[in-house]
Amino acid sequence: MSQKQAGPLWGGRFAETLHPALHEFTNSLPFDRRLVRHDLLGSLAHTRMLLEQNILSRGDAEAILAGLSNLLREIEAGDLVVEGEDEGDEDVHAWIERTLAGRIGEPAGRLHTARSRNDQTSVALRLFTREALSSLVGLTQDLATQWLAQAESHTESWLPGYTHLQRGQPVSLAHHLLAHVWALIADAHRLRQTHDEAGVSPLGAAALAGSSFPLDPARSAALLGFDEVFPNSILAVADRDYVAQAAFTAALLMVHLSRWADEIVLWTSSEFGFVRLSDAVSQGSSIMPQKKNPEAAELIRGKAGRAIGHVSGLLALMKGLPFAYNSDFQEDKEALFDALDTAGTSLAAAAIVADGLEYRTDRMREALHGGMLAATELADYLVHRGTPFRTAHEQVGHAVREAESRGGELADLPLDSIKSCCPDADDDVAQVLDPERAAEAHDSPGGPAPARVAEQLESARSALAELREWQEGREPPPIYVAHRDGQLLEESIP
Amino acid sequence: MSQKQAGPLWGGRFAETLHPALHEFTNSLPFDRRLVRHDLLGSLAHTRMLLEQNILSRGDAEAILAGLSNLLREIEAGDLVVEGEDEGDEDVHAWIERTLAGRIGEPAGRLHTARSRNDQTSVALRLFTREALSSLVGLTQDLATQWLAQAESHTESWLPGYTHLQRGQPVSLAHHLLAHVWALIADAHRLRQTHDEAGVSPLGAAALAGSSFPLDPARSAALLGFDEVFPNSILAVADRDYVAQAAFTAALLMVHLSRWADEIVLWTSSEFGFVRLSDAVSQGSSIMPQKKNPEAAELIRGKAGRAIGHVSGLLALMKGLPFAYNSDFQEDKEALFDALDTAGTSLAAAAIVADGLEYRTDRMREALHGGMLAATELADYLVHRGTPFRTAHEQVGHAVREAESRGGELADLPLDSIKSCCPDADDDVAQVLDPERAAEAHDSPGGPAPARVAEQLESARSALAELREWQEGREPPPIYVAHRDGQLLEESIP
Amino acid sequence: MSQKQAGPLWGGRFAETLHPALHEFTNSLPFDRRLVRHDLLGSLAHTRMLLEQNILSRGDAEAILAGLSNLLREIEAGDLVVEGEDEGDEDVHAWIERTLAGRIGEPAGRLHTARSRNDQTSVALRLFTREALSSLVGLTQDLATQWLAQAESHTESWLPGYTHLQRGQPVSLAHHLLAHVWALIADAHRLRQTHDEAGVSPLGAAALAGSSFPLDPARSAALLGFDEVFPNSILAVADRDYVAQAAFTAALLMVHLSRWADEIVLWTSSEFGFVRLSDAVSQGSSIMPQKKNPEAAELIRGKAGRAIGHVSGLLALMKGLPFAYNSDFQEDKEALFDALDTAGTSLAAAAIVADGLEYRTDRMREALHGGMLAATELADYLVHRGTPFRTAHEQVGHAVREAESRGGELADLPLDSIKSCCPDADDDVAQVLDPERAAEAHDSPGGPAPARVAEQLESARSALAELREWQEGREPPPIYVAHRDGQLLEESIP
Amino acid sequence: MSQKQAGPLWGGRFAETLHPALHEFTNSLPFDRRLVRHDLLGSLAHTRMLLEQNILSRGDAEAILAGLSNLLREIEAGDLVVEGEDEGDEDVHAWIERTLAGRIGEPAGRLHTARSRNDQTSVALRLFTREALSSLVGLTQDLATQWLAQAESHTESWLPGYTHLQRGQPVSLAHHLLAHVWALIADAHRLRQTHDEAGVSPLGAAALAGSSFPLDPARSAALLGFDEVFPNSILAVADRDYVAQAAFTAALLMVHLSRWADEIVLWTSSEFGFVRLSDAVSQGSSIMPQKKNPEAAELIRGKAGRAIGHVSGLLALMKGLPFAYNSDFQEDKEALFDALDTAGTSLAAAAIVADGLEYRTDRMREALHGGMLAATELADYLVHRGTPFRTAHEQVGHAVREAESRGGELADLPLDSIKSCCPDADDDVAQVLDPERAAEAHDSPGGPAPARVAEQLESARSALAELREWQEGREPPPIYVAHRDGQLLEESIP
Repeated sequence: MSQKQAGPLWGGRFAETLHPALHEFTNSLPFDRRLVRHDLLGSLAHTRMLLEQNILSRGDAEAILAGLSNLLREIEAGDLVVEGEDEGDEDVHAWIERTLAGRIGEPAGRLHTARSRNDQTSVALRLFTREALSSLVGLTQDLATQWLAQAESHTESWLPGYTHLQRGQPVSLAHHLLAHVWALIADAHRLRQTHDEAGVSPLGAAALAGSSFPLDPARSAALLGFDEVFPNSILAVADRDYVAQAAFTAALLMVHLSRWADEIVLWTSSEFGFVRLSDAVSQGSSIMPQKKNPEAAELIRGKAGRAIGHVSGLLALMKGLPFAYNSDFQEDKEALFDALDTAGTSLAAAAIVADGLEYRTDRMREALHGGMLAATELADYLVHRGTPFRTAHEQVGHAVREAESRGGELADLPLDSIKSCCPDADDDVAQVLDPERAAEAHDSPGGPAPARVAEQLESARSALAELREWQEGREPPPIYVAHRDGQLLEESIP
Repeated sequence: MSQKQAGPLWGGRFAETLHPALHEFTNSLPFDRRLVRHDLLGSLAHTRMLLEQNILSRGDAEAILAGLSNLLREIEAGDLVVEGEDEGDEDVHAWIERTLAGRIGEPAGRLHTARSRNDQTSVALRLFTREALSSLVGLTQDLATQWLAQAESHTESWLPGYTHLQRGQPVSLAHHLLAHVWALIADAHRLRQTHDEAGVSPLGAAALAGSSFPLDPARSAALLGFDEVFPNSILAVADRDYVAQAAFTAALLMVHLSRWADEIVLWTSSEFGFVRLSDAVSQGSSIMPQKKNPEAAELIRGKAGRAIGHVSGLLALMKGLPFAYNSDFQEDKEALFDALDTAGTSLAAAAIVADGLEYRTDRMREALHGGMLAATELADYLVHRGTPFRTAHEQVGHAVREAESRGGELADLPLDSIKSCCPDADDDVAQVLDPERAAEAHDSPGGPAPARVAEQLESARSALAELREWQEGREPPPIYVAHRDGQLLEESIP
Repeated sequence: MSQKQAGPLWGGRFAETLHPALHEFTNSLPFDRRLVRHDLLGSLAHTRMLLEQNILSRGDAEAILAGLSNLLREIEAGDLVVEGEDEGDEDVHAWIERTLAGRIGEPAGRLHTARSRNDQTSVALRLFTREALSSLVGLTQDLATQWLAQAESHTESWLPGYTHLQRGQPVSLAHHLLAHVWALIADAHRLRQTHDEAGVSPLGAAALAGSSFPLDPARSAALLGFDEVFPNSILAVADRDYVAQAAFTAALLMVHLSRWADEIVLWTSSEFGFVRLSDAVSQGSSIMPQKKNPEAAELIRGKAGRAIGHVSGLLALMKGLPFAYNSDFQEDKEALFDALDTAGTSLAAAAIVADGLEYRTDRMREALHGGMLAATELADYLVHRGTPFRTAHEQVGHAVREAESRGGELADLPLDSIKSCCPDADDDVAQVLDPERAAEAHDSPGGPAPARVAEQLESARSALAELREWQEGREPPPIYVAHRDGQLLEESIP
Repeated sequence: MSQKQAGPLWGGRFAETLHPALHEFTNSLPFDRRLVRHDLLGSLAHTRMLLEQNILSRGDAEAILAGLSNLLREIEAGDLVVEGEDEGDEDVHAWIERTLAGRIGEPAGRLHTARSRNDQTSVALRLFTREALSSLVGLTQDLATQWLAQAESHTESWLPGYTHLQRGQPVSLAHHLLAHVWALIADAHRLRQTHDEAGVSPLGAAALAGSSFPLDPARSAALLGFDEVFPNSILAVADRDYVAQAAFTAALLMVHLSRWADEIVLWTSSEFGFVRLSDAVSQGSSIMPQKKNPEAAELIRGKAGRAIGHVSGLLALMKGLPFAYNSDFQEDKEALFDALDTAGTSLAAAAIVADGLEYRTDRMREALHGGMLAATELADYLVHRGTPFRTAHEQVGHAVREAESRGGELADLPLDSIKSCCPDADDDVAQVLDPERAAEAHDSPGGPAPARVAEQLESARSALAELREWQEGREPPPIYVAHRDGQLLEESIP
């Protein structure tokens, strides 16, 4: 690809070259090639800052900027791909510098002025992380919006709400689905928060001690869309908090998806039967011809384990490392990539599965009339009539036992039986024993009554709109102007 | 303690009592007793809301409020302690209700109106978490302030900055210590952030479906100092995100402390010798009479492992659980308590150890003059004189090899040797070969030059002041007025 | 407790005493007091070895042996308890030495000859671990035996076997329960294996470098029931593999219990209804009077998370620590204790829950006749008649779709329909469409047919008997003879 | 590759095909292609068993056996590679069946008789795991052997043994290196143990309930080199214990490698300087021309974090899953592959790094004469002369303080000073104050004295030889005879 031979970015003080097996062991190109765009952006910003600070001559800087812009354009167009492991580059940074040298010659050797791979790697990884987190906000918003739309049709579809997987009190399917929506909204906020916390540029920290060149780290940070600049050059290259945080945020999101996925598995069982999967989102068995399995949902649940693993792996990695940079940090990338990819593909898969769900409201309603779901209402009725709650609870407990021994529901108990268990009960007690009525009566704020759910739908919709707005407002870094239309733009040079 | 016999808060529908071994297995009183104050606060707020909403009569409500206030005052004064496992309470909530009943009789049975342990537990745990996180912000601020003070005396104490545990470039001790300070400031911000995210009150969600009583969850939330109210009653009782986040935040803080602690261990070694521990912060050996070990530092490092474990444990716990509440959540408390305690005691121990450190700046300075720390400066010097950085790097590498073969430093090389490796070098090259000068010359923003460190000290000081202000501004929840001076205050009743 | 004042086992070289807050931070007495018996045993063995090697005089040794024996006897009788945190002992070892000195005076100062806390702690912890693992083998055996007994009554109780939580093929309840039994048998073997691997005595390694006294580590190892002696004194005190292994083994056991517990939660749901819990093993709700929750089962499932956390915490703790002993290791104990306790209490709780289960075989049988469980049998029938399996699978798939569209089971399809989907089907096809017959027909080895299950019962019984035999054969360490009947025995002194 | 179109192994009952995005999400071919050889072996064994049991006709069976053998031969020769994601195969099993069908036509449709992917996948994964674990035993043995060889040259090279990273007592470099050797030997035993525990064949369990065909699972197990056969068909497909165990074993091994790697990092520091790295195993800095970093060692240390992460991820994955097979299990493979690969590449890298180490025994010896390493010897000397150890410890502590205040070592103290601190000291005390003598004197078993280290070398050598023998004795499964020399062998057909 280039006349320049591949090799490390160092070597003068070495009499021997690196053992080939160790080159392979420590070579990060097979995975950090994914940062090629981000590293080019970082290099563009660094070069422009060097030019503006008169550290590079205009001629050298323009040659480098044009060269980098061309590489970026070709990479984005797919005309250039990072390969070259066999050529001996030890990472994507070496690949870029070598490729640039093949294009523009000597000035390429000036790109690394006042920079180290220590700050260079972290700036690229932060750009990647922010981009990926922003994209996850979008996917989270998509899925939540889809669930919200389903909820809108089901404000009066009743089913039992469960605790301990036992039927507890009636709720609407809309209310139930909104619980998942709100969990995702919280995830989106965390993703955004993590995005913002990753917005500290380390560029200009160099190896660990800044430089005697008159750098302007705030300028390169601004060109890359960062909100802040590192306060301390040692920490700048020693900090991987944003990696651990991004992995944790992804893991918590996966935990939420796994709760929903587990519910799909449960609800598609013959026993629950609250959901039917379309054929397009089910999979069969290689041996049992009748099987129709919710495999994608199971896999989402399983992938939460993977995400959890990355969090402990990364924290164990970071624990106890001395300042400043250590090569252990090279291990941050694969875990981070996989954590964020896992979240992204799982969100997308969940959206497709959700699209293939048919809610069986008949089965849900049927389930409402078993499990004595009106028991709490009966107790509350007695409280209204003066019984202390604790006493009412006890009395209704006896009524439940009585109904159970008769093999029926509370509504099936003769009035006399109820009155004998619950002395304060009157002839109007029957009205509180209908589960559907109970659900509608629960109109405390945040509760399942249709009016309350309408409020929830409204506020969830507006929370999602705000997230969408944020995400769409995320401009590409200003540095991008450098190569609009494949040309180095006038205005992009100071 | 009370004439009322201990027992569960349920039982009417049960013909048999719980197996004693299962009572012991599921009994959370041995650890959730720690929530007694928070649960009393939650109950006070709930009762006042019930009164204001006319769900309880004034007489009942005042009896309950007075009773709870008295319990709270006695608990805070140490006059009452939660015991009573032997009496059969299954958790602190049962203990409180029984104790209250022993004091005020029948009205106690009305306290649980329109409430479930599902919302009750989570509101108490959120209050605890916020209190503990706020206190950790304070401890973090304390330790960072102490390091900052040490940094102030060492803006011109030079030592090698390390990467890969190899000497890299000179930095000042102040700059090095500030790297730790900034890591802690980031922790404090995360703790505060987590505090704020825990500020969603679940009170009023009841079991999972709200209530048909006309609750006002916003009112009880406000009384408890929460900023937000749950949007969905199902999620309100099914959400433990704040627990996982608090544990993660504590773990990341511990990872930072473990980096510092590992440094203390390293620096107190005979080989480094950068630090001497006072006897008051060292420990001896039972067999080797000469030993003086940095045990507290090692233990801090070790405790980071424990904190990491809690994160994976909690995420594994939460994964795949169905809506809404499950008893698995009972396992959240011990892990959370331990994670936050570990962070708190480790911060306090670190402060004491830090107080017993004597920095041996003589040893640090000595270390400066080994390791060819001026190599980067020499390369930069060549760049200033026109050599491309990559070429300069190569040339200096050869000079390093040359110096190494002669058994000396770069500064020891004859001028001719330098010029022969680095053709652009001139007679003034010697000036860049002094490591101390190099450190002072690194005056790019965020770098080790004294002027830059002065800026850092200033901005770190102000960041810490802002954290202190936030933490001191954290008022106790308004509900506290209920029992100021042991009296139920007029104004605390609507 | 003793006239001798508490204090560390070191101090001569220190001018100041340890800061009280660091004493509290590093004090392990609050948890390592649990090792008091094991440490006394270790000390007895060490002393006897010293006597036999003529390192201690007979007079001194006998005084120490008598003193230690008395302490051990009192501790076991409950007449002496380890307290004294307020007196300043930093660990149980210091407590014992101080208490012994209070009893026997000067010879107590000779006990620590040629020993360090480094080997002393680890030998006590290994004794504890072996004892606890052996006890877990017993509890595992108990629970498996109980499930086995239930299986024996249900070799012809049919229910659907599930994959993907979808009904798959019929199995017997016995076969299903035996799957849990075999998982526990594997756990018991791992526990035993881990017990054996912990059987390497570190006593005699001293601080890290053995001793110039003529120690006989093999003799003290033998007295304590260890099978092996450390091969290298550095590793002897630096090795915590047995702790990590024990925690992992406990975690894997907990994962198995959590699968069973999750099944109980599922099966007690109204939707499955395969199991009814007795009141003695269920718990109620504080608000919903009808609830009967499988809380103990949920808690077991939740506790698996805790056990998983300990594994990552311990591995993170151990990672990257330099040789030999580091104080980080002090953190091994609480995690190990909790991991083993969690396994033990969960096994015991599971046994009680299992005892309170009523299997509802009517509901199981009912479930058999939904889900087209005969589909695989039909395919196999066609294979018998010459259809390639892959083709048969496809044909039966069509039959399933046909039955589904008619709203019935395969057995409800008219013969013509079947023949039209499956050309090789003949008039005798009906016989394979009965799920119960299918289960009985599955008599391949390890399968659900009653004869095969009888074989399984037999082999599981014998595996459990062998485990029991092993566990009962675990003698207390020979050193115990030292204080039989409270007397120092003649024969226990060489 | 085949005229047969790719597609799932099911489909008859489905009216729609799987959504392409879910196909991609659930497609395991990109990683399970690694099991192609193992799956072919499993299929060969299954087919031969079917033939021997007369479930397949001789003609069909021979066609299948020949087809599979040819595929296996081509795969092993590299003439055939698994691709075809674009063709729609959902896993390697589908790929094989389709490819076989393209070669031999209709009989390929009979291969899956009485088998499910549930048992098929697990048998392939177990074969893979055993092969990988056996190979790790070999690599572990290699590295340990290399360290052992280095130890042999250094039985009289003395250096300080450390605890708490403080100099403790003198040891020889050989003794120190042997500590690492023994840790690896323990790993090798655990790997072997885990290999053996993975040796239970699940083949014949089919979906979860065995089969009505007269299978002989013991026969296929024997053909594949398994030692045992599943006892219960449900557990057979629901069991991933071997995966978690293999990951844990790899993680513990990585923890040990990380200890050694951390030591290399420490010892190559300028401050320790106990080791010099050859250029071939060091790496440079992109900015600091003088740097020579132990990157491979750091990376090994970092990779321990990754391995720890896989353990928690896998345990979280397995927790709480219902019987029998769930698609979550698909997530077992990548974690397992990566855990075992990480261990393998790290062992190989460690061996290369170890080969490039130069031990600087001069620096080690120098370090011996600082840190008062003779203190314990002095105390022991006093014990020999009658002082109780505890008193001697105190007295020597004072002597240490005295020496420290004079700025020297114990050996530098005037005899009077020693006698004044230690009344029992006599004129011959000087002889115990030489650290090198102390090391030689420590000749208790397992200690650092040369004679003891010679014993250790001998026993480590024989332990390694035994492991080598085991590993070399691991024959390929007998089924391999099926295609020796590319021919279907006579004797391989019954």
